[in-house]
Amino acid sequence: MTIALPAWTQGIHHDGSEVFVSNPLPRIDESVSFTIRTPLDAPIMGIYMRAMLNGEFSYKEMTKHSITELVQSWQCEYDIKQSRVDYIFMLMTDDGAIYYNARGASFAESLDNDSFTLLADYDAPLWIRDEVYYQIFPERFANGDKSNDVQDGELVRGGRKSMKRKWGELPYPWKKAGSMDFFGGDLQGITQSLDYLQQLGITGIYMTPIFEAESNHKYDITNFFHVDKHFGGDEALVELREETKQRDMTLMLDITPNHCSYHHLWVTNFKDHIDGNTAEFFYYDEENDAFETWLGVSSLIKLNYSSQKLRDIMYRNDNSAIRKWLEAPYSIDAWRLDVANMTGNQDSHQLDHEVWRELRESARKSNPDTYLLGEYFQDSTAHLQGDELDASMNYQGFNMPMRRWLTPPDKQKIVTDSPYAYKPSIPAEVMAEQWQLFMSAIPYSIALQQFNQLDSHDTTRILHVAMDDKELVKLGTALMLGFPGVPCIYYGTEIGMTGAGDPDNRRCMPWNEDEWDSNMLAYFQKIISIRKASNAMKHGSFKVLLAEGDVIAYARESSEETVIVVGYRGNENRSVKIDVAQIGIANKTDFTDLIGGTQFTVFDNNLKIANIAHGQTLYLRKS
Amino acid sequence: MTIALPAWTQGIHHDGSEVFVSNPLPRIDESVSFTIRTPLDAPIMGIYMRAMLNGEFSYKEMTKHSITELVQSWQCEYDIKQSRVDYIFMLMTDDGAIYYNARGASFAESLDNDSFTLLADYDAPLWIRDEVYYQIFPERFANGDKSNDVQDGELVRGGRKSMKRKWGELPYPWKKAGSMDFFGGDLQGITQSLDYLQQLGITGIYMTPIFEAESNHKYDITNFFHVDKHFGGDEALVELREETKQRDMTLMLDITPNHCSYHHLWVTNFKDHIDGNTAEFFYYDEENDAFETWLGVSSLIKLNYSSQKLRDIMYRNDNSAIRKWLEAPYSIDAWRLDVANMTGNQDSHQLDHEVWRELRESARKSNPDTYLLGEYFQDSTAHLQGDELDASMNYQGFNMPMRRWLTPPDKQKIVTDSPYAYKPSIPAEVMAEQWQLFMSAIPYSIALQQFNQLDSHDTTRILHVAMDDKELVKLGTALMLGFPGVPCIYYGTEIGMTGAGDPDNRRCMPWNEDEWDSNMLAYFQKIISIRKASNAMKHGSFKVLLAEGDVIAYARESSEETVIVVGYRGNENRSVKIDVAQIGIANKTDFTDLIGGTQFTVFDNNLKIANIAHGQTLYLRKS
Repeated sequence: MTIALPAWTQGIHHDGSEVFVSNPLPRIDESVSFTIRTPLDAPIMGIYMRAMLNGEFSYKEMTKHSITELVQSWQCEYDIKQSRVDYIFMLMTDDGAIYYNARGASFAESLDNDSFTLLADYDAPLWIRDEVYYQIFPERFANGDKSNDVQDGELVRGGRKSMKRKWGELPYPWKKAGSMDFFGGDLQGITQSLDYLQQLGITGIYMTPIFEAESNHKYDITNFFHVDKHFGGDEALVELREETKQRDMTLMLDITPNHCSYHHLWVTNFKDHIDGNTAEFFYYDEENDAFETWLGVSSLIKLNYSSQKLRDIMYRNDNSAIRKWLEAPYSIDAWRLDVANMTGNQDSHQLDHEVWRELRESARKSNPDTYLLGEYFQDSTAHLQGDELDASMNYQGFNMPMRRWLTPPDKQKIVTDSPYAYKPSIPAEVMAEQWQLFMSAIPYSIALQQFNQLDSHDTTRILHVAMDDKELVKLGTALMLGFPGVPCIYYGTEIGMTGAGDPDNRRCMPWNEDEWDSNMLAYFQKIISIRKASNAMKHGSFKVLLAEGDVIAYARESSEETVIVVGYRGNENRSVKIDVAQIGIANKTDFTDLIGGTQFTVFDNNLKIANIAHGQTLYLRKS
Repeated sequence: MTIALPAWTQGIHHDGSEVFVSNPLPRIDESVSFTIRTPLDAPIMGIYMRAMLNGEFSYKEMTKHSITELVQSWQCEYDIKQSRVDYIFMLMTDDGAIYYNARGASFAESLDNDSFTLLADYDAPLWIRDEVYYQIFPERFANGDKSNDVQDGELVRGGRKSMKRKWGELPYPWKKAGSMDFFGGDLQGITQSLDYLQQLGITGIYMTPIFEAESNHKYDITNFFHVDKHFGGDEALVELREETKQRDMTLMLDITPNHCSYHHLWVTNFKDHIDGNTAEFFYYDEENDAFETWLGVSSLIKLNYSSQKLRDIMYRNDNSAIRKWLEAPYSIDAWRLDVANMTGNQDSHQLDHEVWRELRESARKSNPDTYLLGEYFQDSTAHLQGDELDASMNYQGFNMPMRRWLTPPDKQKIVTDSPYAYKPSIPAEVMAEQWQLFMSAIPYSIALQQFNQLDSHDTTRILHVAMDDKELVKLGTALMLGFPGVPCIYYGTEIGMTGAGDPDNRRCMPWNEDEWDSNMLAYFQKIISIRKASNAMKHGSFKVLLAEGDVIAYARESSEETVIVVGYRGNENRSVKIDVAQIGIANKTDFTDLIGGTQFTVFDNNLKIANIAHGQTLYLRKS
């Protein structure tokens, strides 16, 4: 019961990138020009851009701007007076009036939520665009100081005593160890491994929590103000900071603003804590002497942000948990905010927006360039509008659809008793649809900051998802490096580590190079170095050119450069034809695959790639 | 590049109505059960409902509930702890995992914005569901007291003097009169016409502004606290209130919270006004002694809600502009808020959400059952989430697509120099798509309150849109009366009035019945009386069954009743076949057309209606 849009509408393109917006990060009162691109043979009589200004439609007729033999560009200009401008395009065509918004073309009017969005006066942490991140689970990465290792029985949590383990053995399952087995990893180990990371091409390190806590994962923080002594204490962080600075590497710490450990003194000594009566920090039920917990886990006590005092201590004060670590000598660059999705929210309290706005303002007092990254397995887009977080862990917008696509369709296990896992494998069409859907809900300048990972300490490892097929891991990594946002590699993926769910995904990093897949490592080094040299990949536009079962191809364009990324998951070698006329690329244009070195020439409006192999990615750069 | 959904997914249905939610307006801590309906032959292995609770996914497996020979119902229950619960459904099917949200089915994950939404503790003004409204432009409806008529030259505005006109002559165009020609309509005239309205079936009256102002439309208010003496003053409103109460009719006034007249004493005497220095009520540029205006119209001065004093006077105080009229002896039932879309917004001030939340709270102190209706030609859905407005003038969600559909495609004028008017006519597919899109963005309990009109004082009249085809006006009105939301008829439409744009759409109501189309009036009476007796139409579910060029059909179901509304705009008589199996209606079921009286029986899974005429609507009620 819908009318199909004419095929030429697939060729309409605009996004908030520098290719289509003269300044994607303007200040208030700047004039900004907007461009939209349409196929040359499209029956378009005129185009209006429509911005929502002070709640009212503001229409501007666009004028024909540049033209090539294939595409027409249209332009108009707006003076930007608001910190947020939502806009769409209206095309008058022989096929009727067509609305074009961030979700695509439509004959029906647009919802504001589907608009493109330009943020003005948004202070983007621009440095993040150049980064390639590496996620470390500190307890399992490298043991740099054996003297601080946790000993058997030294710590007790949830009735379980700490167990000292031997590096390289497999983590005990939760039932056996309850996250209380320790291998000795610490910050000194990370500092000592910086040369390795630098050679890989890594520019930023994200560590899961390092603050005082009893478990091996340290999400059960007992003190937000000190680095755990088993990780080397505050001094080890200072040293890591100095060593990373010398290598121009950035540092992101992880904190849980949502909850703390039931052994935190705020909980155990709530009546006579040095911070006063701290019962108000929690949802404390006096009658039953019980604290509200995170999803019923009794050791993780939910924090209550209706307490102004808690807000002061957590993020508002100069020496608050958030700000202390942004200040010298730690001077971290970024925060990863654990369980961001639930922070501030508890039934009648839905304080999420308020808490993020305040936390952002506070953090920026200590470091105006702070990058604030929230953990969201859910839709995070409501918090990515310029005044709260700078990015989220892009599970829904990139990671999950990519993991599903990397699941071999012919080998997938169908799980009917869990809503998460049923028929995981999807074709490229669905992956592309989900990518674009979640990108449509955020300003493009934020899309360029989204934190993309194939896996993390919270998921099965990508090699496990790919059913031990390393070619698929390479494919996913290369597609991630080409994708808008900050790529992040989970420690060890580059040398072939695997692992199922927690805690198997937290195995020890092997430092015996014989255990490494050195081909894989070399491949990672290569694609990372290409990404770092490519402005198009780092801040160019994005358009899916082909999504068809086993094949995905998308274009990234910056003002200087065009790169077309092509990936193939199929088993048998095959040919792929990519219509590049839709982005205005003419016949006889040459492309070079930056990975394989092969040259291609556009013919018949298409880039034809013969004999593309299982797991192969091409980074086709226009000459 | 997308994969088509299997056809059976068209048969999935859920909305937030009483058919699918055990209590669509629950209180916090209530338990609510949710139902989804799927085709019996759909290859579904299981369904999870997924609510977002405190920012986290909460999955519940649904159990098979009732079954008919055609559809399967699935159910689950949630305890509601939050004032807003967003939810979707996940179907495990042979065709893969399918997400079903308010926009429909998809293989890709859902954005929260596309979720269904249940509001808890939302105090809906339930009375509004039973209403059929009538919009009056008081200066042109009826002259009940000639002694208060505006005289030639009595008022001066924008350099123009008032002109006294003779009832029934055409309004002078703006260039000639500048909204300063007066025909003498007043509140007494409305009071004297109540029998007429009651016979028509009207239960609620919405009047454009009646407060002191100089123009004939009175959107240039000079005093928010008194009824204009030319309309009979405050006493005339008291009388109208008493007379309407006796007839069980409700009353909605119109106010402009966005601006006031440049002749308001707040402007002219801003330095020494009785309310203090009132410069802060505006955006006053001291240097140039200039006030910010509404869209550059120099006589309409933009109000500045960063002034707390203005908020007090406009809506917070007991005797504020908003609250005074909600209190006895005026006791109005509802406010229509003019230029709601811009209220509170001016460049760096984007105070819209804040102002509506406060205004709502304040208004409800005077009348907890107040219905707050905002004027939005734009997307209003951000303000229709339970804590701001109860409804908007549903221009985008109903009125505009309906007006476009009622534009005869074979006669439409193509206008290429305006983004508003280009190729206005659309087929039913596009109308249905836009209806559903805008409905998807609001809770269903709010959709039932949306204010639907075919025309208003701000648009050309619907008979003009329909190019003088009265059958199309009847068709549009009947489809509006069947649609979710509050229907409202613009004065005179029922007797065949026409008119192009402002001020031609504000002609005098003729009271000589010889000038009336009495067939049309009788038709309006009939369909209004059917609407008023139908729970399905007033608060049932909504599902489009057929949208195909000239034909539209949708189902409304309540707990007691099923009505299928069918409308046809085509020129030649034709047959229509409606697949009713998709809503579980079996063969041999009988339907009666409540308008025409004809009986129909379901055969071969379809309702077949032969020989449907141009402009015909059927209200098919299941026996």
